Amino acid sequence: MTELSRLQPSFALADAVALLTRTPATLDALLRGLPSWWTSANEGPNTWSPFDVMGHLIHGEKTDWIPRVKIILEHGERRTFEKFDREAQFEASQPQTLEARLEQFAALRRENLRALAELRLGDADLDRTGRHPAFGVVTMRQLLATWVAHDLDHVVQISRVLARQYADEVGPWRAYLRIISGTQG
Amino acid sequence: MTELSRLQPSFALADAVALLTRTPATLDALLRGLPSWWTSANEGPNTWSPFDVMGHLIHGEKTDWIPRVKIILEHGERRTFEKFDREAQFEASQPQTLEARLEQFAALRRENLRALAELRLGDADLDRTGRHPAFGVVTMRQLLATWVAHDLDHVVQISRVLARQYADEVGPWRAYLRIISGTQG
Repeated sequence: MTELSRLQPSFALADAVALLTRTPATLDALLRGLPSWWTSANEGPNTWSPFDVMGHLIHGEKTDWIPRVKIILEHGERRTFEKFDREAQFEASQPQTLEARLEQFAALRRENLRALAELRLGDADLDRTGRHPAFGVVTMRQLLATWVAHDLDHVVQISRVLARQYADEVGPWRAYLRIISGTQG
Repeated sequence: MTELSRLQPSFALADAVALLTRTPATLDALLRGLPSWWTSANEGPNTWSPFDVMGHLIHGEKTDWIPRVKIILEHGERRTFEKFDREAQFEASQPQTLEARLEQFAALRRENLRALAELRLGDADLDRTGRHPAFGVVTMRQLLATWVAHDLDHVVQISRVLARQYADEVGPWRAYLRIISGTQG
């Protein structure tokens, strides 16, 4: 990461929590009340709409992050994490409106951050290790940092999917819009 | 854009306004109160931090979108738009805290959407044309769609810059995180 200019010394749990706390309100501010053609539009076959992404985030709150934190604390490397189902948002048990998904995600995130706070993780806990089904040994610090980056990855995806519905409408400006041209820049 | 599944018939001004209205609150929810090391971090030399991007968005509100709408209405293709200064956020006149930038962006956006509403643009106005310094003839519809996509492009950029500060911290999960690996997927 030497190519990045940054000043923070190392991963801090408080910083991660600060971001995790903000994601539900960020997505609510962006999506609630937008026309449904837009929030249900995707990028083509086998891609996700903003509505689908919200279901994926809900499933992560239920089965991925905090359950894995607890497996690390209770079992360390002896118990491999359950595999995460990346397609669970297509199950019938998911809320069927965008607004209900935004609310469920916010409620689950609040509960999970409360559960995280109750664990009172210290620096030594961040070095604890667990076992990922594909990667092998991982640390608590890596798991928590991934929770944060995963949130932001899906904020990016939702914003990109919304913007790409205007790929034709922007006309020649598409050359300047990295979100449409597909370059990262 | 035939590869996308979408149901909306064509560009609608009300949809564009719906998104433009939401951007200030989205960025406020994401950024306000985050640690300043994070909001001032970038992706390396000649890249922008979230703080820089907010200055760019402010400058756009002042000099780009609504001024160009008015040039189209008043002068059509006879008057070429002013070039947009993509580096104006580094000028001394910009607010010097992130919070002040969030507030100025929100205030300018409110004013500009009020100005847009007062113009009472109809479908025929969306077909009006102006002259872009690089692209030549463009339509009002393209300009307004670009305003929307430009907002979302910078929501993507801010989210990506925040996430990339964790590129090391996520460890082996970087393989799954498109935001860090650099793929769009």
